[in-house]
Amino acid sequence: MGSQRFSASCRSAILVGVTLAGVLGTAIGVEAQALKDLQTPDTPLVLKAQGSFFVGGEKAEETQVELGGLGPGGHITVNQMYVRYMVPQGGDGHLPVVMVHGATLTGKSWETTPDGRMGWDEYFVRKGHPVYVPDQVGRGRSGFNQAVFNNVRAGTVPVGQLPPWLRFSDEVVWPNFRFGSTPGAPYSDSQFPVQAVDELSKQGVPDMSFGLPRPNRTFKALSELATQLQGAVVMGHSQSGPFPLEAALLTPTATKGLVLVEPGRCPDTYTDQQITTLAMVPVLVVFGDHRDTPTGISTRPSWQLSFESCQALIGRLKAAGGDAEMLNPKDRGIRGNSHMIMQDKNHLQIADLILQWIDVHVSKRSAGKK
Amino acid sequence: MGSQRFSASCRSAILVGVTLAGVLGTAIGVEAQALKDLQTPDTPLVLKAQGSFFVGGEKAEETQVELGGLGPGGHITVNQMYVRYMVPQGGDGHLPVVMVHGATLTGKSWETTPDGRMGWDEYFVRKGHPVYVPDQVGRGRSGFNQAVFNNVRAGTVPVGQLPPWLRFSDEVVWPNFRFGSTPGAPYSDSQFPVQAVDELSKQGVPDMSFGLPRPNRTFKALSELATQLQGAVVMGHSQSGPFPLEAALLTPTATKGLVLVEPGRCPDTYTDQQITTLAMVPVLVVFGDHRDTPTGISTRPSWQLSFESCQALIGRLKAAGGDAEMLNPKDRGIRGNSHMIMQDKNHLQIADLILQWIDVHVSKRSAGKK
Repeated sequence: MGSQRFSASCRSAILVGVTLAGVLGTAIGVEAQALKDLQTPDTPLVLKAQGSFFVGGEKAEETQVELGGLGPGGHITVNQMYVRYMVPQGGDGHLPVVMVHGATLTGKSWETTPDGRMGWDEYFVRKGHPVYVPDQVGRGRSGFNQAVFNNVRAGTVPVGQLPPWLRFSDEVVWPNFRFGSTPGAPYSDSQFPVQAVDELSKQGVPDMSFGLPRPNRTFKALSELATQLQGAVVMGHSQSGPFPLEAALLTPTATKGLVLVEPGRCPDTYTDQQITTLAMVPVLVVFGDHRDTPTGISTRPSWQLSFESCQALIGRLKAAGGDAEMLNPKDRGIRGNSHMIMQDKNHLQIADLILQWIDVHVSKRSAGKK
Repeated sequence: MGSQRFSASCRSAILVGVTLAGVLGTAIGVEAQALKDLQTPDTPLVLKAQGSFFVGGEKAEETQVELGGLGPGGHITVNQMYVRYMVPQGGDGHLPVVMVHGATLTGKSWETTPDGRMGWDEYFVRKGHPVYVPDQVGRGRSGFNQAVFNNVRAGTVPVGQLPPWLRFSDEVVWPNFRFGSTPGAPYSDSQFPVQAVDELSKQGVPDMSFGLPRPNRTFKALSELATQLQGAVVMGHSQSGPFPLEAALLTPTATKGLVLVEPGRCPDTYTDQQITTLAMVPVLVVFGDHRDTPTGISTRPSWQLSFESCQALIGRLKAAGGDAEMLNPKDRGIRGNSHMIMQDKNHLQIADLILQWIDVHVSKRSAGKK
């Protein structure tokens, strides 16, 4: 979701005095995904290398209160970005692909699907591409700056300075991620594995995007990552749909191709100068089906508006000589894709279309430039 | 660190009115780890399977306020545990190993070391063991229950109900993780790659262990994971050092072996009945060097106390007929190991000692029981 577009009024809250203890009192058990649901591929995965590292980060000096009180004040690192990577054996010549997750989610989005199938991370590796999966700055294994929360706890900073922590309820996910217009009632052609929707629910983590320093440090971290990789395709999803554009504005020569999967929005605020820069980089936008469904979120009534904002951006990029296009699987007779298209039942079919676009529009173009 | 042992007085905070904006104003850039620091192994890694999934989790009904205001109230999942896994090709017959991280850290602890060497996760896989690396419930990709923070923000819950978010400063890490008694001055025999200490700093994430439901849901999740795996070695580190014991108390037949790496403490509160249960499972405790260094944390003056608490537990387990022992590399002439022993320069030497113990005390014993 394009969280940056949510207005303050949208977040004005219904005040209901339910305490944490009360909420936990209503918790009910969720059936564990059996390990047996995890599918084993027919052939082994052969990796030249795998592991993880960080990009970016800044030292901050914090007080004992801000550090939670375990020891005296001192320095910590904040705003770093965790990245897990897999490099295939024999994939030389294939461009690295960076896959960035959306709001209230982590890099898990691209890993094993909720119903246990291979994620896009592994599939792209099997197709020869080194794959890099970050957690956005402020999320998951990248951590966040906890200082303001501890200051409010100590009474030295007003409660009003707390940023909200965002989560999507399961009830909002159904229409907003376009599994069905009503929770529990999937579209007859839905491609999302709705029997495993509770596993998607487990992927949710609190999101304090509204409390992050601006500009979002993930933009620069993606730019640095693409630069360190000496060129990469940068793929964003949902909230991070526009992030590849922001990274490209910082280092257009390092971001060899941009894939915007179901972006929350395509910005209409870029200057002509910025459009000229972005037109240097091939851009693919991908949207699934059922975009007219009411989302259940008043400030973002439908995903069709997001689609149209991207059509407009594609138009501006093409007018500036850019190579930009929309991949709308429905135009090819592929129906029922959801917002979580990388987890849909036909996710490898969609991945193949993206891989084909990379091959034609990015890899060959990059090769031709060398 | 054994966070459960920190007293309330330890956490009583020095009130210093530094705002988040003020802290960010002091932030300075940290040199990015160059991608070239990541070492590529000589031989490829061949995996039968890899991916991620969740264990546990409970549905909670939360209000619009508690969900951060994006949409109406509804249900989310809380207290789930994220697990990443790698299964080697041809590793049949080797027991799975579960590796749990310590306080203010995530599963990243076991991945690529701060200076770019292969992590224990991959090394154990290369030795034939399927490896499962969770993020503790409430940390990293497992997320946490954000309700109380949003309720405080809305004014419906008093500030006093906020749990602290814990971080260790770099200055505390040096003596507490035993790289050297003073920040920046490593022991002459230090095994930690101190030139990369800023990369370890990036692994730090806020830790709200004090705000989690009790008992810590990670205990049950580890027990469930070992059960689903039809038997596993469970390894904990630092704060999670005792977690394998807690998992074993829940399912002693599924936890085939327990490896306690630098545990913050070994509990002295177990009943004779509990000791009888734990004595069914082989236990290895691992401690590094320089344990007498003052930690800089007043309530835990030295790691020698942790070591002695584990010696006492080993004594009780042996008296009850158990197979329990201490691995103190210094006894074998191996000096300078730190609290982050899985990242030390000789980390594979230590791993080999643990693998040898698993082979002799767990695998053969388990095989003999079949």
